[in-house]
Amino acid sequence: MSITVVGSIAYDTVKTPFGERERMLGGAATHFALAASFFEQVRVVGPVGEDFGERQLQIMGTRDVDLADVERVAGGKTFFWHGEYGWDLNSRETLDTQLGVFEGFQPKLSESSRSSEVLFLANIQPDLQREVRGQLPQARFVALDSMNLWIEIARDPLVAAIEGVDCLILNDAELRQLTGKPNLLTAAREILTWGPSVIVAKQGEYGAALITTESFFALPAYPLETVIDPTGAGDTFAGGFVGYIAAHLQEELSDELLRSAMAHATVLASFNVEEFGTERVQRLTREEIDARLAELRSITQFSGV
Amino acid sequence: MSITVVGSIAYDTVKTPFGERERMLGGAATHFALAASFFEQVRVVGPVGEDFGERQLQIMGTRDVDLADVERVAGGKTFFWHGEYGWDLNSRETLDTQLGVFEGFQPKLSESSRSSEVLFLANIQPDLQREVRGQLPQARFVALDSMNLWIEIARDPLVAAIEGVDCLILNDAELRQLTGKPNLLTAAREILTWGPSVIVAKQGEYGAALITTESFFALPAYPLETVIDPTGAGDTFAGGFVGYIAAHLQEELSDELLRSAMAHATVLASFNVEEFGTERVQRLTREEIDARLAELRSITQFSGV
Repeated sequence: MSITVVGSIAYDTVKTPFGERERMLGGAATHFALAASFFEQVRVVGPVGEDFGERQLQIMGTRDVDLADVERVAGGKTFFWHGEYGWDLNSRETLDTQLGVFEGFQPKLSESSRSSEVLFLANIQPDLQREVRGQLPQARFVALDSMNLWIEIARDPLVAAIEGVDCLILNDAELRQLTGKPNLLTAAREILTWGPSVIVAKQGEYGAALITTESFFALPAYPLETVIDPTGAGDTFAGGFVGYIAAHLQEELSDELLRSAMAHATVLASFNVEEFGTERVQRLTREEIDARLAELRSITQFSGV
Repeated sequence: MSITVVGSIAYDTVKTPFGERERMLGGAATHFALAASFFEQVRVVGPVGEDFGERQLQIMGTRDVDLADVERVAGGKTFFWHGEYGWDLNSRETLDTQLGVFEGFQPKLSESSRSSEVLFLANIQPDLQREVRGQLPQARFVALDSMNLWIEIARDPLVAAIEGVDCLILNDAELRQLTGKPNLLTAAREILTWGPSVIVAKQGEYGAALITTESFFALPAYPLETVIDPTGAGDTFAGGFVGYIAAHLQEELSDELLRSAMAHATVLASFNVEEFGTERVQRLTREEIDARLAELRSITQFSGV
């Protein structure tokens, strides 16, 4: 079932201990779409400026991605982010952010984008997330990502947006911050009373956890010796998760389905961080995903208890 | 097969957001012994002062623990630690440390303690660890724990001590610090070239990872809504890990055995943090361990990939 994603399309300048890239393709909607399109068609809604190139559109459309709602704003500049990662890649500093066309962005969804049965609200202003969610009242699975900024300056609108979705995907520290509860499980269980039935806690290099009213599931990150650039890992994770669910939504949203989606998400994210930006995922194959899924299974298996 | 542990026996004064305890029984050897004695007899080597009570000795000996080498130093004071944990229990501040009889501690091992086939060198000065290890030349499995302090002020002796053991159990940040390598896998693989064949990376609330030359295994922590006091979790984990291995050392030290030991370690540690100090583990039953092991399995299982 088709997926609509609303979020940023960006140019990223990134420096890590392993190198640097200037103005490469980035943005939450970009990373999400590249991952989710392994599973289903993705319709991207987001603005770009006049400086946005054909080459970048081609990359976004590597697989089955509908770019009709990528709005090119005349005279505008594409959202730009410049960041630098520290020694262990766990800390990063934002050196520059230029909102460009993202400032004053009002999502315009075509008939086609509104007809999707799955919706991913990437990290944007919570009122916009709610407004878009309202344009797809019949969507069967809606997931939302956000960030600490909105918890700090727009908590009430964010809570209202979360109330209207099925699934919240957030960093574990942000789940604690959002609820004021230091314990992950307690925090997630509080949010489950707000509306969502699925909470995904992203834990960076430690993996991710899935909390529903009936179940808890946790998965380590796929172990890598070479991590080059973590930018976009969270959105790639979300793309794997939501994409897998979209491809199986004819089934019940069972615990087994959600866990399998977590495994796919983990694997997609592991490829993302192995090279800069979209470089690795854009040439990724289904065979490579399957091989790493099998490895992830073997990494987490134990018996004899 | 019997286990000898060398390490601290302490009085801990601990404040967490959930309460406070004054001068309760603590110390690395204590927590280790209480956990490992579920599986095999543990012989404890460590000093206490004249202020150490019969009640504390009774707690340490809850299960099959040989206390003959607990040295009571005339006129001495038991090692004392006073710490306070922050909001999310992930940070802690040491308010006071009084080494007492631990200062100038020279481990004296009886014939019995020297005859153990398994040895755990809890966090003490690395030269002492090496000296004790030399007193059990025939030991079949020797594991070592340490801390950032020794990496900073005694790295060469620590590396020498690590070279002589089979297994290093360390926090993941300390593995990075010890090797100067920001990547956990790269750090662990470097240490595998020094001598040990097994590296265990403790990751606190995120769980733990096991790295050998052939295999990687990772396990999330058992999810808890109520964490009261993390003190001793690492040593309880080590007790579960080393204890389980000691109970199965007639078998080959296989990947399956090591993974099962990780699961037992994870479960033991999860009980430890649910109450202050040794309170929970001292009344823990085998049935409770087994029930949580089964839950841990279900928490980490996924299929359909």
